Amino acid sequence: MARPHNDNFLRALLREPVDYTPLWLMRQAGRYLPEYNETRRRAGNFLNLCKSPSMACEVTLQPLARYKLDAAILFSDILTIPDAMGLGLYFAEGEGPKFERPLREEWAIRDLTVPDPYDHLRYVLDAVSEIRRALDNSVPLIGFSGSPFTLACYMVEGGGSSDHRTIKTMLYQRPDLLHHILDINAQAVTAYLNAQIEAGAQAVQIFDTWGGALSHRAFQEFSLAYLKKVVSGLKKSHDGERVPCIVFTKGGGQWLESMADIGCDALGLDWTTSLGDARRRVGDKVALQGNLDPITLFAGPDAIAAEATRVLEDYASTGGPMTGHVFNLGHGISQFTPPEHVTALVETVHNFRA
Amino acid sequence: MARPHNDNFLRALLREPVDYTPLWLMRQAGRYLPEYNETRRRAGNFLNLCKSPSMACEVTLQPLARYKLDAAILFSDILTIPDAMGLGLYFAEGEGPKFERPLREEWAIRDLTVPDPYDHLRYVLDAVSEIRRALDNSVPLIGFSGSPFTLACYMVEGGGSSDHRTIKTMLYQRPDLLHHILDINAQAVTAYLNAQIEAGAQAVQIFDTWGGALSHRAFQEFSLAYLKKVVSGLKKSHDGERVPCIVFTKGGGQWLESMADIGCDALGLDWTTSLGDARRRVGDKVALQGNLDPITLFAGPDAIAAEATRVLEDYASTGGPMTGHVFNLGHGISQFTPPEHVTALVETVHNFRA
Repeated sequence: MARPHNDNFLRALLREPVDYTPLWLMRQAGRYLPEYNETRRRAGNFLNLCKSPSMACEVTLQPLARYKLDAAILFSDILTIPDAMGLGLYFAEGEGPKFERPLREEWAIRDLTVPDPYDHLRYVLDAVSEIRRALDNSVPLIGFSGSPFTLACYMVEGGGSSDHRTIKTMLYQRPDLLHHILDINAQAVTAYLNAQIEAGAQAVQIFDTWGGALSHRAFQEFSLAYLKKVVSGLKKSHDGERVPCIVFTKGGGQWLESMADIGCDALGLDWTTSLGDARRRVGDKVALQGNLDPITLFAGPDAIAAEATRVLEDYASTGGPMTGHVFNLGHGISQFTPPEHVTALVETVHNFRA
Repeated sequence: MARPHNDNFLRALLREPVDYTPLWLMRQAGRYLPEYNETRRRAGNFLNLCKSPSMACEVTLQPLARYKLDAAILFSDILTIPDAMGLGLYFAEGEGPKFERPLREEWAIRDLTVPDPYDHLRYVLDAVSEIRRALDNSVPLIGFSGSPFTLACYMVEGGGSSDHRTIKTMLYQRPDLLHHILDINAQAVTAYLNAQIEAGAQAVQIFDTWGGALSHRAFQEFSLAYLKKVVSGLKKSHDGERVPCIVFTKGGGQWLESMADIGCDALGLDWTTSLGDARRRVGDKVALQGNLDPITLFAGPDAIAAEATRVLEDYASTGGPMTGHVFNLGHGISQFTPPEHVTALVETVHNFRA
């Protein structure tokens, strides 16, 4: 299997020469697009959409039809693994994800098992295959998973949380129980991502959305250690091509040195960290991805172009080669973003030369 | 006016020798205390409580009656300034602070004026005087204000916000308007804190609760520059005693070097930053305050003692003198904290020797 026709994204991650700085947007297939909302309406609800490979394929391709993005990302939910573990994922209207059976009792934690991705997560792998066929080798497809700690947050809290006090109480009071959950989660994430790679994902990203809520010590022990386990268990190549792995800890800017040491190919950065400083801190160990503030896209085209240029110049300020940077937002695109504003961003990034 | 009998807090901030590491807790007078809830019930609502000097004094002293804390902090709200500006502060049940007239129109922004603290904020100054009398020179009293940017967040958003998209859109699209608001806010905060100092506050803290939501570039221009304006306008001493100033930017751990250069005496840190690393980065420029994860207090006494000791050892790891550290949480104490758990924390901190 050859690389896609536009492989700038993969080349940037592997720090090979690129034609221009490639970009994709976290949550690029999503609610800011009217065509997405139309498909979602047709699906009936969000979970139906995730669980239908043909509709997941349809919405994955929607942003690529509008914008010259350099990668597609599998449309799915971050919580498919705990759903496959039997926790009963559901979405309360306007409240985000919830679990019918949050993981709080010791017996339930001891009963937790690693789901076989080829069984309960078959619908995700089918979506990956279908998207690869539909992409027809135009741009690479990114697979993804939540991190072991981020999955545990939702599993223990039973949904989103502003202070994570249930899981953090477990962390401080019963670290043995949390380590048990994280160990199961790390095995599950590894198997899930490897199955996505087997099904055709050409790069993978691990979203550590809540690692940044931890203390600097707890992050090392309860998030980074398990990210490292996952990364070291991942298939490094498939069909003769390297499959790069990106790790993104929201709010992890202070910990980049240790994150660059876990064996991943790239680190995602939010907008609080300077790309130039990050490059100086991690040296040549990893590629970097990011990091425009998503709210920039609410301003007009001139302001968007100016801010995107500042991000690109920040990276270029180290004077190193142009490669090693994948442009992205520092977090998912807001559902309230005017879709036409994204065009100015794509053009600015593709036209930039250091 | 002499220093208080227990002046370890002031000495730590000024990096003079201390008897032990002093501590206080952000939001130490608050909803986790049943006696606070009782006073609040009597007040009818939160704003009545803030605006009554005698009740504000009563709740300020409540945590000091329970625990051997080394400082009192004025009980007040972070949004008294915009309320005095006429924006109409109110509290919707269970929804946090809101403004009747959020600041969105250019004409309203141009009309904004600096409130005279001796007029519309008299009730705060009266509370400061009354608390000082009641403390009878036992421990120092801390005055406080929100930062210019943090006040602007609430003023423009009209309340709390998860993504700050209204103020950030203004920041990217109409930076001139935001700079105008921030300039007025900086003048207002300076006048307000100086009036608190005149009334008897022996140290002041500026809460930059939302500065950490900004990009690294925007933080410098829209938050730090105005923090610097405030700090440089503050009275440095009163009644012959130095009045130290603490700046706390939640999520600001990546920017400590530039924050240490604005002329404040101490920086507050949340739990994502290592105190030892912070000390190595800022050298001898400032004292440091923090930084236990507040959720630690949900665990049992042994776990609390162990975590607090790790924080103290982290600071001591630099091998410098014991002073220069004020122990605190990395954010306000949770309203769900069991009050009896705080005792284990206070004892651990006071008994620690490096």
